[in-house]
Amino acid sequence: MNHAILLISCPDAKGITATVTNFIYQNQGNIIHADQHIDDQNNTFLMRIEWSLGGFRLEKGAIGKEFSKIAEQFQMNWELSFTDDLPRVAIFVSKQLHCLHDLLFQYFYGQLRCKIPLVISNHDDARLLVAGFKISFHHVHVTPENKKAQERREIELLKKEKIDLIVLARYHQILSPEFVSEFPRRIINIHHSFLPAFAGKNPYQQAYQKGVKVIGATSHYVNDQLDEGPIIAQDTVQVSHRDTLEDFIRKGMDVEKAVLNRTVHLALQRKILSYGNKTVVFD
Amino acid sequence: MNHAILLISCPDAKGITATVTNFIYQNQGNIIHADQHIDDQNNTFLMRIEWSLGGFRLEKGAIGKEFSKIAEQFQMNWELSFTDDLPRVAIFVSKQLHCLHDLLFQYFYGQLRCKIPLVISNHDDARLLVAGFKISFHHVHVTPENKKAQERREIELLKKEKIDLIVLARYHQILSPEFVSEFPRRIINIHHSFLPAFAGKNPYQQAYQKGVKVIGATSHYVNDQLDEGPIIAQDTVQVSHRDTLEDFIRKGMDVEKAVLNRTVHLALQRKILSYGNKTVVFD
Amino acid sequence: MNHAILLISCPDAKGITATVTNFIYQNQGNIIHADQHIDDQNNTFLMRIEWSLGGFRLEKGAIGKEFSKIAEQFQMNWELSFTDDLPRVAIFVSKQLHCLHDLLFQYFYGQLRCKIPLVISNHDDARLLVAGFKISFHHVHVTPENKKAQERREIELLKKEKIDLIVLARYHQILSPEFVSEFPRRIINIHHSFLPAFAGKNPYQQAYQKGVKVIGATSHYVNDQLDEGPIIAQDTVQVSHRDTLEDFIRKGMDVEKAVLNRTVHLALQRKILSYGNKTVVFD
Amino acid sequence: MNHAILLISCPDAKGITATVTNFIYQNQGNIIHADQHIDDQNNTFLMRIEWSLGGFRLEKGAIGKEFSKIAEQFQMNWELSFTDDLPRVAIFVSKQLHCLHDLLFQYFYGQLRCKIPLVISNHDDARLLVAGFKISFHHVHVTPENKKAQERREIELLKKEKIDLIVLARYHQILSPEFVSEFPRRIINIHHSFLPAFAGKNPYQQAYQKGVKVIGATSHYVNDQLDEGPIIAQDTVQVSHRDTLEDFIRKGMDVEKAVLNRTVHLALQRKILSYGNKTVVFD
Repeated sequence: MNHAILLISCPDAKGITATVTNFIYQNQGNIIHADQHIDDQNNTFLMRIEWSLGGFRLEKGAIGKEFSKIAEQFQMNWELSFTDDLPRVAIFVSKQLHCLHDLLFQYFYGQLRCKIPLVISNHDDARLLVAGFKISFHHVHVTPENKKAQERREIELLKKEKIDLIVLARYHQILSPEFVSEFPRRIINIHHSFLPAFAGKNPYQQAYQKGVKVIGATSHYVNDQLDEGPIIAQDTVQVSHRDTLEDFIRKGMDVEKAVLNRTVHLALQRKILSYGNKTVVFD
Repeated sequence: MNHAILLISCPDAKGITATVTNFIYQNQGNIIHADQHIDDQNNTFLMRIEWSLGGFRLEKGAIGKEFSKIAEQFQMNWELSFTDDLPRVAIFVSKQLHCLHDLLFQYFYGQLRCKIPLVISNHDDARLLVAGFKISFHHVHVTPENKKAQERREIELLKKEKIDLIVLARYHQILSPEFVSEFPRRIINIHHSFLPAFAGKNPYQQAYQKGVKVIGATSHYVNDQLDEGPIIAQDTVQVSHRDTLEDFIRKGMDVEKAVLNRTVHLALQRKILSYGNKTVVFD
Repeated sequence: MNHAILLISCPDAKGITATVTNFIYQNQGNIIHADQHIDDQNNTFLMRIEWSLGGFRLEKGAIGKEFSKIAEQFQMNWELSFTDDLPRVAIFVSKQLHCLHDLLFQYFYGQLRCKIPLVISNHDDARLLVAGFKISFHHVHVTPENKKAQERREIELLKKEKIDLIVLARYHQILSPEFVSEFPRRIINIHHSFLPAFAGKNPYQQAYQKGVKVIGATSHYVNDQLDEGPIIAQDTVQVSHRDTLEDFIRKGMDVEKAVLNRTVHLALQRKILSYGNKTVVFD
Repeated sequence: MNHAILLISCPDAKGITATVTNFIYQNQGNIIHADQHIDDQNNTFLMRIEWSLGGFRLEKGAIGKEFSKIAEQFQMNWELSFTDDLPRVAIFVSKQLHCLHDLLFQYFYGQLRCKIPLVISNHDDARLLVAGFKISFHHVHVTPENKKAQERREIELLKKEKIDLIVLARYHQILSPEFVSEFPRRIINIHHSFLPAFAGKNPYQQAYQKGVKVIGATSHYVNDQLDEGPIIAQDTVQVSHRDTLEDFIRKGMDVEKAVLNRTVHLALQRKILSYGNKTVVFD
């Protein structure tokens, strides 16, 4: 059964929840999940609501138009999606392939509810792996000189494939502000440290030198500042003096995979709402 | 500012959320939190909704009466409470005092939003500690012979103090079904293992003999079966062969305190809804 | 540089550590790691010691013979291995392929220091995946009637390939005591619950029905009792009422992979010493 | 039974372990624990060894003198202690008393193997609490003007009480390099974030503003740089958008207590060896 999902953020006001739920009820929808949060400090109302379209009076195509009146009334940022529309996902990767591999395995066995039409890399290492999953692979070599042109080429590829979500699965190139602005709050990165600690290059080496006793991974939306976008999910694992740098990297990889995995599932279920420099995760 | 909180469970049906939120909206309430969950397997609708009473049209005392019409319509189990009514809490304890101590410390420093009029124990060990916090202490010695009478005495004490919530903070007596039925879903226990493993006596010894590599703690509502009531919260910590039984106990104590602490805060904020043999925790 | 590793367990006595370390020192070995543990309750001495063979006076082949005199003196169970002898590993799997996949990925990228000559399954599902990694795949269909014969066939395959370690990466057949006795303390299983809770079939369904708030995974040596062998590693992850059974399974998979991964690395580094119904993990 | 414990660090060389264990063996000691680690990057040998003095040929007072010959030979930094010498501990605290409270509770119930003769604070808040435990309390008010003098007074108090270990249990004054140099690697601090993230003031506010999804606590030795000393232990806990800043603080407190608790136990058991900017924790 097809479900509709609304993600809403707007200035807080009386009656928002009542108005939204009435809209659904009066059109004969059955609410499956509703979760609401208010950010006091910013006076912001945030909501995720999901309802069944079985017997709903409005056609799928008419819902947005009808809802836009309510949205206007409350100055909402909103996004409407449907569970039978599979999100279209592109994965970017460099030379570390474990996250890519983990995602593609789940995709192959039907555990990721999405369509992955392409993988893009600045290296050729992933070609064979990606080919094995019958996904189109694009090696886009990036240098300081050709970066602008190559990003334009990538944008073209992504637009052509109507990509909804870009997953940087250990992609070690910094995307330009121009690129990012083409896909606002649609690019997810996995960083191999518990941010804000150890941003930037070689976080495991940094962590090893520092002698920390936990390492971790962080998923976040990409914005214009390196490793500074709104955090979605984080996890950590204990390490000790008995762990070599190699052990840090190996143990960290398992955390990276798990955190990215969780994040991609959340994104595909439209459970992440990003506003300001924070996220609300309706899990 | 005083808030009203409704906890609702009922058979799922169309329009529940809309009806409830409309009730609040039309009386000029501002919804602060709303979270809803549907248990598919049991076709059960579960909800927590909290709204500000600033400018609300109904008197505090009239809200329940008015709401009961909606409740009847949807066959709801429901509970209405107000943030300015401090829950009244009794703590039961035996000889291990760390959980009691941790709760009383928070209580003393104003970090627990409740009133604790009494502590009951089947031993005298906690007397001095409790006295130090100016709380009334009752040593109720229980034997197989006097159990019935002593429980009646306890019930009397609890009723007299209008106790809303009973916290078994390492109380090592089994409460009779008669006692439990006087306080349905109002008795919380902390058990020093990750249930359902190591129920019953001496869970750390059991865990140590078994050679497990994690230990844990579980909070749950008390029902008629030992350590079988609906689970509220659980956590675990890594152990190794280097840990002695004494280390298991010490590390476990920190987990017990943290899990019970989290649970009591959830209960005081009316964020736990228990139905069947499960809980919904609106955290 | 090649290292020798000794794993020792024996009745505790004075002078064991001094005698062992002297043996290494007098033969010009440089100790890299030494870790010792005494199980008080069983009066058992347990040790792992690793030394560099650069400049060691004894030939690799002579070390064991020479050491056996010390071993005899202290009635040791001992195992000598060398880091330049790659352990030979067989993986058993049924229909859930995520653990297999994760191990083969690491193997392919040189992150598992071992040789994997074969994968055995009671189903055919893994054939293509295994073939992609150029590893020999054996579909050994097992029924109550043919079990004895099929296990003999498997033992033959394993002996022929000189297998040191068998990894049950979600293999859902119970191995007979005869099979297990052929590979004592050389068979590792991953079970998808935090044992001893939810042993046996469908642990995630059991956990979901029970309403637990953590799920987990356990690796253990296989002995004659189902899910009862000495535990090697365990980990858990938080779940909530918002998680469906499908979510339990998905989140659990990430824990299973991480726990098995950690366990296989420990086994390959000869860091696990199993005695009685417990393990010492020299991590 | 009294045990001797040696903590050793020195440049790596052949024969250290053999020499140390022989020293113990030839004097009829029975080694209870021995754990050794080599830091490859710094070519440093690190060891903790503990043996029973039952039947040991050397008097307690003669062991150090005898051992110093070996220490000289290998240029060791070393520390000899005995389990029947209770470490003398001072606790420093400011206005947040939860860590102090947790430690004193354990102390009172005999769970901390140490002697705590005094608590020092720059505020008067802890006076009553400390008095309840019959421990001497010193309110040492510190201002920029009187800091030097007040620290001299504190040093005097600490020297007079022969303090072995100083625990900063949420003490919010920066100790001067002069003070620190009086107690090298004998001052432990608990910081309420997972360092190196959120060093300095108000880490929970920083974390809340940043929108992180885990918070944590870190124990470390104090050196001349704020929150930069060698890390001993760390742990984290998940948070979500549903947690207010108040919830961050409350959940964090439980992590702080558990991490500091673990650290103090490790220190009392002489299981921490600090060298360079790192620690080895023989747990």
